[in-house]
Amino acid sequence: MRVTDTGGAGTAPGNAPSPSPAQPLSPSDWDWSAWSTMRLGQVEQALQQWVCADSPAGLGEAMRYAVLDGGKRLRPLLVLAAAESAGHAVGTAALRAACAVELIHAYSLVHDDLPCMDNDVLRRGKPTVHVRFGEAQALLAGDALQALAFELMLPADDSVAPELAFQLCRHLALAAGGQGMAGGQAIDLASVGRCLTQSELEHMHRLKTGALLQNSVLMGALCGRVPEAARDHLARYGSLLGLAFQVVDDVLDVVADTQTLGKTAGKDADNDKPNFVSLMGLAQAQAYAQSLITDARVALDASGLPQVHALHALAVLVEGRTH
Amino acid sequence: MRVTDTGGAGTAPGNAPSPSPAQPLSPSDWDWSAWSTMRLGQVEQALQQWVCADSPAGLGEAMRYAVLDGGKRLRPLLVLAAAESAGHAVGTAALRAACAVELIHAYSLVHDDLPCMDNDVLRRGKPTVHVRFGEAQALLAGDALQALAFELMLPADDSVAPELAFQLCRHLALAAGGQGMAGGQAIDLASVGRCLTQSELEHMHRLKTGALLQNSVLMGALCGRVPEAARDHLARYGSLLGLAFQVVDDVLDVVADTQTLGKTAGKDADNDKPNFVSLMGLAQAQAYAQSLITDARVALDASGLPQVHALHALAVLVEGRTH
Repeated sequence: MRVTDTGGAGTAPGNAPSPSPAQPLSPSDWDWSAWSTMRLGQVEQALQQWVCADSPAGLGEAMRYAVLDGGKRLRPLLVLAAAESAGHAVGTAALRAACAVELIHAYSLVHDDLPCMDNDVLRRGKPTVHVRFGEAQALLAGDALQALAFELMLPADDSVAPELAFQLCRHLALAAGGQGMAGGQAIDLASVGRCLTQSELEHMHRLKTGALLQNSVLMGALCGRVPEAARDHLARYGSLLGLAFQVVDDVLDVVADTQTLGKTAGKDADNDKPNFVSLMGLAQAQAYAQSLITDARVALDASGLPQVHALHALAVLVEGRTH
Repeated sequence: MRVTDTGGAGTAPGNAPSPSPAQPLSPSDWDWSAWSTMRLGQVEQALQQWVCADSPAGLGEAMRYAVLDGGKRLRPLLVLAAAESAGHAVGTAALRAACAVELIHAYSLVHDDLPCMDNDVLRRGKPTVHVRFGEAQALLAGDALQALAFELMLPADDSVAPELAFQLCRHLALAAGGQGMAGGQAIDLASVGRCLTQSELEHMHRLKTGALLQNSVLMGALCGRVPEAARDHLARYGSLLGLAFQVVDDVLDVVADTQTLGKTAGKDADNDKPNFVSLMGLAQAQAYAQSLITDARVALDASGLPQVHALHALAVLVEGRTH
């Protein structure tokens, strides 16, 4: 059982960066730091290349500003970790899918931060896109990033098989759309000032953040030819991880300061938004996050997949994150 | 040479409306009114079914409001007309593509009308989406409509072949994105109060409206198995038609009243936006639109395709439209 990376499917030079070769690692010396450094390097390099500045009239710059130099890249790492979970090499399709989910996430943040939504001025420690480029340009940058996410998975060369691209794009469209992320945001809008039950709150987050996180895992699984039975376990892992992510987010909104978060702290209370801490109290919310992560890792082990170090590590990361 | 419609590829009942059977028409009795009534009926029925209200918290209603009960459906008609141009039956893939381009168009109008863009209160004779549902919901409805456009072309059943879906989605992503429609809108933003040359103005419109109109024709051509050589002629037809559409739009902005247009007239002058009338004068702009349409129809004839009645009729429609 070895993590190997053959450099991905062949792609035209200068068009599609291939994952760079990794050192083979045996299970005993699997090393999160080495893995995440390598995978983050691939993702950053690919985003730098694929989110290019050549959209006109400053739009490309606004798009790059929204995507580059920041972000934990949790979703791309989930794609890549799931893509190697069955023991296959991580190829170009997975790297494209990894960047595509990050573009969807980035566009949602740009639109979320707009004055008509959360009206936030700080993101990843920098002025938000509309503060830097104006509201209209921020709106267009978000729109163009959504289109680019799909474009990335549909390269003109033959580096992504049509059948795989079809499934990846379908997952992405469903995760992003009215019954996924956008739908969750609509519930969020409608929930301001209301008391939600835990079940209503979880339904909102399952759409708002959970759909894209879970589909990151599933898209990686498709790229990595994970057998269908194991995919069901990965779906459960992704669903639990997504919910845990949001519970931790609510905890951080209360306990962390703005500088550590890189975005405005205490927003939920300020905006009168329901969240897990207001619903169940701080200690209980922290314990709930921990139990969700434990269940996610149980689901991972139940998958029987040979190469799940990185997916375990990402679950631990979600539980322990500080920003 | 007959226009026939076999009802499209098999699709699950209740999931994907198939084009309903048409009366075969011989060239001599080709009838625009019958054709457009039939095709518009198919498009409206499909949009009614596919843009469903089940996105949560009012989002589905806002999406339906943005799409249904209005619009000339020029882009879907271009898809369907191009899809039958080589003499093949119009199937489910073409109807899905037709609706997808309309959803991209509809989302762009919703976002365009927002206060941070054109700040318009009237569209298709009705209050704009943000006036009716609020800015935040309008933003999300636009976002969700873009995702739905891709979803439509990627059905879970086998009604669209993966290779065709790949090409359709790629065309749509490029037409909508930073080097298509969104890029053109960014140029438009940056052009307010500036003098543009005719070439700069045409570049802006080639992206802003031309890319989606031209790709409507090309997506239809892909669905209708138009040979590659003929596709080049259709690309030229689509490009010229797209430009003519915008020149006519600028003429109408000056000569028509708000009630006829169903949207606010005189906007360009009010917003200090460059346009073809301010650049070349009214009579010259009208003559230019006419010459572009003539050239588009020459390109159509040069394609050698057997079934181009509807594409000719749509060119005439663009030239003569009053709203």
